[in-house]
Amino acid sequence: MMDRNVGDHQIEFQPIGRRGLCPAGETLLDCARRLGVDLASLCGGNGKCNGCRLRVLEGRLSEVTPAQQEVFTPEELGHGWRLACQTYPHSDCKVDVPPEGLSAQQRLQVEGREIDISPDSPIKAVACTLEPPSLVRPVADAENLIEKLDAFSPEHFDINILRELSTRLREWNWRLTAHLRNRELVAISPPGTRSMGLAVDLGSTKIAGYLMDLATGKKLAAKGIVNPQISHGEDIITRINFAIRSPDGQKRMADLIKDTLMSLAQDLCSEAGSETGDILEVVIVGNTAMHHLTLGLPVRQLALSPFVPGVSGDLNVKARDIGLDFAPGAYAYFPPNIAGFVGADHVAALMATAGEWVHGNVIVLDIGTNTEISLINRGKITSVSCASGPAFEGYHISSGVRAAPGAIEKVSLSRGDLHYQTIDDAEPIGICGSGILDAVSQLFLAGVLNSGGRLQKGSHHRVVEKSGCLEFILVPQKKRRRDTVISITQKDVREVQLGKAAIQAALEILLAQGNIAATEIDKIIIAGAFGSYIDISNAVAIGMLPGLPLNRFHQVGNAAGTGARILLLSAARREEMKNLLTRIKYLELGGTPQFSKAFTRACLLGPYNTGPDAAGR
Amino acid sequence: MMDRNVGDHQIEFQPIGRRGLCPAGETLLDCARRLGVDLASLCGGNGKCNGCRLRVLEGRLSEVTPAQQEVFTPEELGHGWRLACQTYPHSDCKVDVPPEGLSAQQRLQVEGREIDISPDSPIKAVACTLEPPSLVRPVADAENLIEKLDAFSPEHFDINILRELSTRLREWNWRLTAHLRNRELVAISPPGTRSMGLAVDLGSTKIAGYLMDLATGKKLAAKGIVNPQISHGEDIITRINFAIRSPDGQKRMADLIKDTLMSLAQDLCSEAGSETGDILEVVIVGNTAMHHLTLGLPVRQLALSPFVPGVSGDLNVKARDIGLDFAPGAYAYFPPNIAGFVGADHVAALMATAGEWVHGNVIVLDIGTNTEISLINRGKITSVSCASGPAFEGYHISSGVRAAPGAIEKVSLSRGDLHYQTIDDAEPIGICGSGILDAVSQLFLAGVLNSGGRLQKGSHHRVVEKSGCLEFILVPQKKRRRDTVISITQKDVREVQLGKAAIQAALEILLAQGNIAATEIDKIIIAGAFGSYIDISNAVAIGMLPGLPLNRFHQVGNAAGTGARILLLSAARREEMKNLLTRIKYLELGGTPQFSKAFTRACLLGPYNTGPDAAGR
Repeated sequence: MMDRNVGDHQIEFQPIGRRGLCPAGETLLDCARRLGVDLASLCGGNGKCNGCRLRVLEGRLSEVTPAQQEVFTPEELGHGWRLACQTYPHSDCKVDVPPEGLSAQQRLQVEGREIDISPDSPIKAVACTLEPPSLVRPVADAENLIEKLDAFSPEHFDINILRELSTRLREWNWRLTAHLRNRELVAISPPGTRSMGLAVDLGSTKIAGYLMDLATGKKLAAKGIVNPQISHGEDIITRINFAIRSPDGQKRMADLIKDTLMSLAQDLCSEAGSETGDILEVVIVGNTAMHHLTLGLPVRQLALSPFVPGVSGDLNVKARDIGLDFAPGAYAYFPPNIAGFVGADHVAALMATAGEWVHGNVIVLDIGTNTEISLINRGKITSVSCASGPAFEGYHISSGVRAAPGAIEKVSLSRGDLHYQTIDDAEPIGICGSGILDAVSQLFLAGVLNSGGRLQKGSHHRVVEKSGCLEFILVPQKKRRRDTVISITQKDVREVQLGKAAIQAALEILLAQGNIAATEIDKIIIAGAFGSYIDISNAVAIGMLPGLPLNRFHQVGNAAGTGARILLLSAARREEMKNLLTRIKYLELGGTPQFSKAFTRACLLGPYNTGPDAAGR
Repeated sequence: MMDRNVGDHQIEFQPIGRRGLCPAGETLLDCARRLGVDLASLCGGNGKCNGCRLRVLEGRLSEVTPAQQEVFTPEELGHGWRLACQTYPHSDCKVDVPPEGLSAQQRLQVEGREIDISPDSPIKAVACTLEPPSLVRPVADAENLIEKLDAFSPEHFDINILRELSTRLREWNWRLTAHLRNRELVAISPPGTRSMGLAVDLGSTKIAGYLMDLATGKKLAAKGIVNPQISHGEDIITRINFAIRSPDGQKRMADLIKDTLMSLAQDLCSEAGSETGDILEVVIVGNTAMHHLTLGLPVRQLALSPFVPGVSGDLNVKARDIGLDFAPGAYAYFPPNIAGFVGADHVAALMATAGEWVHGNVIVLDIGTNTEISLINRGKITSVSCASGPAFEGYHISSGVRAAPGAIEKVSLSRGDLHYQTIDDAEPIGICGSGILDAVSQLFLAGVLNSGGRLQKGSHHRVVEKSGCLEFILVPQKKRRRDTVISITQKDVREVQLGKAAIQAALEILLAQGNIAATEIDKIIIAGAFGSYIDISNAVAIGMLPGLPLNRFHQVGNAAGTGARILLLSAARREEMKNLLTRIKYLELGGTPQFSKAFTRACLLGPYNTGPDAAGR
């Protein structure tokens, strides 16, 4: 608990019921974040994204800023609506966070295939009963335990274990479970304690955490949250620039991740009835930039030609050395990166899907803010990455929301009739990635958008003009609780075009390099939360995916998360992964004229050119 | 630099010239310690030891406390004399620390034999020139370096190295020296940087530090300072009790050591024109209690039967994990403890003197606040320890000072004529360990003390009565700058008796167990700063040492410090040490009736009973 100082105000966030102190000079947004209330702010708190709307039910506030006057009507302001990033409490307050402002209920991002492996964690739990020392046998406590662990040839006790060993041995009456990682003692616990590990898929936008039982391989809890670094830029390059240019930027980025991982671990542990101190190992996968920012490694060279990582091999780092407070001697294991931005998350996705690879040509496609694509062909793997932007995660879209209840996830426009479906059939709050893709594709097929992506005036009664720009109304004002419509703007369409063009162009070049026509692809494995929920036909219709028989597409959910769990649970799979890596060739697309040309062409909506002349062959 | 807050005052310590801020509520003593001004306070700041006397030259102060009115005359108080522990500044101040109040000039404690070994540090410096990465060869920075280090099979890069590698490689134009410890990269430096290590002898009272060149084995700088834990108790048991019973006591003890080691390292490095970040390895030897308190290990079980350490084997700990900020991946190496309180410092002393062992019976005696004794006989080593108290380090003695210039280090009383010698022939400021031993022995031989240690009224004109107690005046008032005499009180004699009795009794029992008469000892190697400066004849006269021909005694200086340097410089010697350890048998004296009986008998002044009936045989 924080001590209350002069100028601190007590803030209560409803309906979550979280309370805490807000010191003078801290906005409601900063306060919410510090207290673990995940407000959906995207713009870094400068009043631009309107993601941090909330309603103050009780309490005095700072004056309304111009940014807020633009967002809210006087009546809404009168009812206490504010942007949390622009509001400083002047007394104790009670605030209400609307469902669309919270990420806690977000679904999708943690789902992935169940895994079926024999757990073979590098951590072995050994039950021991020690003989208490005596004047006749005045053996030191560590050496007393080493004797019992003789079969495991223990070489090293983590210093933190030594710091508790003598006290615990006596407390536990000389009975304990020793947790050995290779030949190092990393934790001790009372007899019968569960061995737990944490697997993390650290995406640019979303973070998925899985608390696993290391002995049984069972999933104990899972949760997805937003990557808080997003407040310093939605794409990787912006974040790298922040890390390089801001004073302490590198450290702030690492601290954001550290705090978020600890809070994620706490939530998972309390769901599982455990404590973070019982987490014996954490496996973290992310793209190269996330990997470096989490470890506190320099990122400048990643953003400059020849785009090299600081390190590409796998790393075993003490969890405490990256600020994670788990079991006393716990390690964080970072699987290897491939090259460029193709990081351990893609390695994990490959590991998770390797069992589904067939003879012939297989594509593994992990769509996210950064998209990685691998072509597997005759035992060789070629990997590329491209910046597809956050549109498919619901960001950078005027009515975009994450995939929370009430998000429009499916859209169809059949003979002019609009239908949409929201998550959990809740009242619509906005549109999420799969809904945006559907909408653009359906509008294109209905002729509301032309192939250049332009909204056509008069093509549909829902196409309206607002401040001189056209937009397509999905949900008119009257149906919504709040006074804004849900629409697809011209700018939204452009964002989708940019994202799909990056993916399409990267795929085209990858195939061209392998001398393979799109029609020769035998299987496309689509990983990632967004990829699991998209309507393939709609993605094919605009050219994001090649026009192949639908049974060649396999949507596998969060494969990176699944791979992280596999690597957490199995030492043997970590070895297999190293073999896999030797087969991977990385292809750098960054700044090549070939990519720019393919990208420009791919901005057009319409089917993918699957013929042999694709990508300039 | 600390930022100045309201209530802070600027304090300048003369003649050292150290300045810094003293926040409201901090005493001058605490402020001095924080700033690295080593004031000679012993009592922990409760106004009892008068060690922290100083003179305030300028500035306003808190009111004079009763403790200070007792210590100082009104005239002295008027001249600004104060006890730092009882004084709070009320404005900026300038204070003068008298020479006897400072430990900085202390001599003796770092001296030991020069060592002559071929340096063979576990750390290898490898000069490398890397090929810069390119789009054709976009190899990650760590892997680029690993290739060059192939001959050393590098397995692991410390995370802190990875945190600087990419930046430094480009800054140094792809040329560097890599420092490998076994198969781990622990530091990188620009080409041609010196490889340095730090050896520390961490005594209960004194800490000796040696900055060494790992490649040449040359001593770059050496310094001795007072162990600041002394403010929480002069003997080990008091400190253990503090660590156990005070809230956060364990952490405070570790923090004191950490801060002191950092400040010692800084002083040594600035003397050598280097920086603490260049220290690649530190070797720390101390008794078991010092070892545990430095590492933050529990000590409760050390003080309770059967007196077992938390760990006895050697430890390789990241320096950062004990709060030391050296080279990014630097290790602290803690050699093994033997058992009970006989720790790595005695192992180091044995390593340093092993070349001088002869056939027959050898005693290695390391006199300090805790004294360790080993008997080497036919390849077997038997070790004991005893609490000999801090009297021989100048503590617990009314006029006691550390061995600084002006300390009386030799005393003789010939036909009633008193002669004394001070260190550097400076004006006498007090009496240090060797002087006290001389004084007691000479007073005994002259009949001023009887064998029970009682001062004899009328036995010498310098024996005077003060407040009903007798004392022997060494330096009368008129010769001193300040208004107190230097004398030996009855209580001082008692302290010496207790110390010598502990050593004598421990030695008697050790010999008795080995079935060896004192006369059968072929060599007594006396280690430790105090041991190096004592007059052997005087020690023999009161029975602290057995009456053997003087050529059997060898005073070798700080052998523990020498051993620490050897272990720092040579991986081969670390292996030899492990062999040595297998030959050591520990004998627990704590609380045995045999020891109590021998101790009581040994309290008498007079020659050691060297006959075969000693120690009750």
